[in-house]
Amino acid sequence: MQIVQTINELKQIISVNKDKTIGFVPTMGYLHEGHQALLNKARIDNDIVVASIFVNPAQFGPNEDLDRYPRDIDRDTELATDAGVDVLFLPSAQEMYPAESGINITVGDLSTKLCGESRPGHFDGVLKVITKLFHLVQPTKAYFGQKDAQQLAIIQTFVSAYNFPVEIVRVQTVRESDGLAKSSRNVFLSEHERVEAVHLYHALLLAAEKWEKTNDLNAAIAKGKVHIESNTSGKIDYLQALSYPDLQPVTDKTKEVLFATAVFFEKARLIDNILKEKKDV
Amino acid sequence: MQIVQTINELKQIISVNKDKTIGFVPTMGYLHEGHQALLNKARIDNDIVVASIFVNPAQFGPNEDLDRYPRDIDRDTELATDAGVDVLFLPSAQEMYPAESGINITVGDLSTKLCGESRPGHFDGVLKVITKLFHLVQPTKAYFGQKDAQQLAIIQTFVSAYNFPVEIVRVQTVRESDGLAKSSRNVFLSEHERVEAVHLYHALLLAAEKWEKTNDLNAAIAKGKVHIESNTSGKIDYLQALSYPDLQPVTDKTKEVLFATAVFFEKARLIDNILKEKKDV
Repeated sequence: MQIVQTINELKQIISVNKDKTIGFVPTMGYLHEGHQALLNKARIDNDIVVASIFVNPAQFGPNEDLDRYPRDIDRDTELATDAGVDVLFLPSAQEMYPAESGINITVGDLSTKLCGESRPGHFDGVLKVITKLFHLVQPTKAYFGQKDAQQLAIIQTFVSAYNFPVEIVRVQTVRESDGLAKSSRNVFLSEHERVEAVHLYHALLLAAEKWEKTNDLNAAIAKGKVHIESNTSGKIDYLQALSYPDLQPVTDKTKEVLFATAVFFEKARLIDNILKEKKDV
Repeated sequence: MQIVQTINELKQIISVNKDKTIGFVPTMGYLHEGHQALLNKARIDNDIVVASIFVNPAQFGPNEDLDRYPRDIDRDTELATDAGVDVLFLPSAQEMYPAESGINITVGDLSTKLCGESRPGHFDGVLKVITKLFHLVQPTKAYFGQKDAQQLAIIQTFVSAYNFPVEIVRVQTVRESDGLAKSSRNVFLSEHERVEAVHLYHALLLAAEKWEKTNDLNAAIAKGKVHIESNTSGKIDYLQALSYPDLQPVTDKTKEVLFATAVFFEKARLIDNILKEKKDV
């Protein structure tokens, strides 16, 4: 595995592999089995696998956890090696953002719901770094987890609207044995919160079940919220159901429904979601 | 020369030419010797030359000349064939913008001066279409005229900040025998205005000369403006001198100075500019 810290080195490697298929897994590091699933899929599909680890300042708000976002490069390097990664790109913030151009990407409507509401500018920052990384790596396919459903929906829309020559591959959320979605931020949970945290997933399952039985989305959302409030010490940011991937209110024409939640614990804000096909009624 | 109207056809051609160097000349059509200079340079530098003709709605304001922008596809096709273009991309607006994603590119500070001031959103629209075209054509080099100096500066900054894998080539402004910069919009000038229009260029030369002699930029600008006011029936939008390519006020550290002007005639707004190296004083 080649470890690359500069854009020039990366460009050189990409330029000599123009005839190969490249699978790309962009990450913020502190890799877990969720990332592993992305890397495994990329390894199967492509000649070359490129992974990046970059805790992107542009997608953190002023009061968010940029500085204390968990990092462990040694363990990440080992995991990437084991997953068969060919090139691991580890740029510095200075390397990625040497100067302020004043030119930005604004997500608009898709960023006003779910996580976007409590994280203004977050998805603008995601698209900024994704654009740069896609241009540098020039991947055939790029792999993203369903765990970040809104991010995936926005990237998919962006890639399509701006004709990026890359295929976005969606990979299912990987869960702990009790059902908690794998996340780098789970490390911030206290022992007590870790036990409670599985109830985000349970609440989503209960809400979806209620909806499938009654077709009453409001009652379903209410049931999910009550479950989180009764079973955790966390504070609900949102629990919502929207059509996927356009993130609009559910209507008769909706095909897939996203049940998504975000909950603040003492030192971590966790998110989770499930997707359900809408049956004709 | 292949004439291509759909994105799918274009993608197919690009995908079988991955091992070739591609020179790209994006235009809005009504081609003249300025475009020809871009095409000639692209022809010399690359294996394959792709040109596009697309009058991009996203870069026209509500009261601008989108509907009456001059078009002559037959003549353009002939000129492109003669210039050795391999692929001429002629998409419809529906093909380029099938749906509104809500995701936009905002230029910020660089778009607040010169033409940006009287054409709000113009450069945002330019970057939108350029991003799409670059992703579709995947050029090795793309060619732009110095005539649109602010556009060139913004595209250069954008390509660098967002790591597009393309080299931007700047090509000198081509002029009529009397000195008027070639432009598709010159066709809108009355006979009388056509005679006057060369004084935009003269005014820029006079201003630059005054500045080089006196080092007094305000006096230089004033001299240029008086020249246009005295010799044309046009209304000055701006005549300014800025450092290039960052479009900031000229300081001791400035290396290149852009003298640029825009003048409204009855049915056309013309622009012109010259670049001067700043000598140490």
